[in-house]
Amino acid sequence: MKLDTLGRHILVEYYNCNGDILKDHKKIEELLNEAAVLSGATIVTSTFHHFNPWGVSGAVIISESHLTIHTWPEFGYAAVDLFTCGDKVDPWIGFEYLEKMLGAEKSESYELSRGNTDKIKRHNPAITGNINFKMEETEDLSERSVI
Amino acid sequence: MKLDTLGRHILVEYYNCNGDILKDHKKIEELLNEAAVLSGATIVTSTFHHFNPWGVSGAVIISESHLTIHTWPEFGYAAVDLFTCGDKVDPWIGFEYLEKMLGAEKSESYELSRGNTDKIKRHNPAITGNINFKMEETEDLSERSVI
Repeated sequence: MKLDTLGRHILVEYYNCNGDILKDHKKIEELLNEAAVLSGATIVTSTFHHFNPWGVSGAVIISESHLTIHTWPEFGYAAVDLFTCGDKVDPWIGFEYLEKMLGAEKSESYELSRGNTDKIKRHNPAITGNINFKMEETEDLSERSVI
Repeated sequence: MKLDTLGRHILVEYYNCNGDILKDHKKIEELLNEAAVLSGATIVTSTFHHFNPWGVSGAVIISESHLTIHTWPEFGYAAVDLFTCGDKVDPWIGFEYLEKMLGAEKSESYELSRGNTDKIKRHNPAITGNINFKMEETEDLSERSVI
């Protein structure tokens, strides 16, 4: 079967990562942006913060939704979300890249669909056409654009 | 039973919302920040973008993790995440506030735990002490701080 959905959301727990990397907010920002690009996403903006005494939180907004990370260097733990829309992006590439670059010895992940189009239609009878991710009114219609 | 976890993550689908509000990126930014504050969270930074022809994506990084939103005004649909750590925050207050303010006629939500402390310990034998969310070495230890 095929599930008709706007997006997919991968929730990840990375265990026993390299604590020095989890402390390094510049590196974490770089890695999350790289994970977005490798997944085929288009970066719109990102924001990251370093906490005292340590730990990093950040988000990368992409045309296709977002990536976020929160790190606990003292426990070697990081919580990552990769939420992408459309079938031109593969968030699992970003997942694998981060697993390797954070030095995670173990990881757990689960994927959920977001924006089931049948449900969106069922709850909004005014929608008569098809629902899909192609949002931008440009020549190739391949992705949303920022104004 | 009690599950020992760093955080909780509520994933929300809001259906048949007010399309004019979903198009208004200033309003969406304001609402998401207000949802964070009402939930008892401390805002660190936020970033929002308006897409062409419409739709808003944004993230609010809080000391306790993050809130994100992606809106599809033409379908009346919004995907929201409320990820919070520690027991001084109640993300369900933010959920209810957004449900009301976006004019959602229907919503679906599911809550997941993030950062199960038993698992973090199991996968990192070097941890000997307790794991909890209190990260900041200040007088009241009540929350992480930004440097």
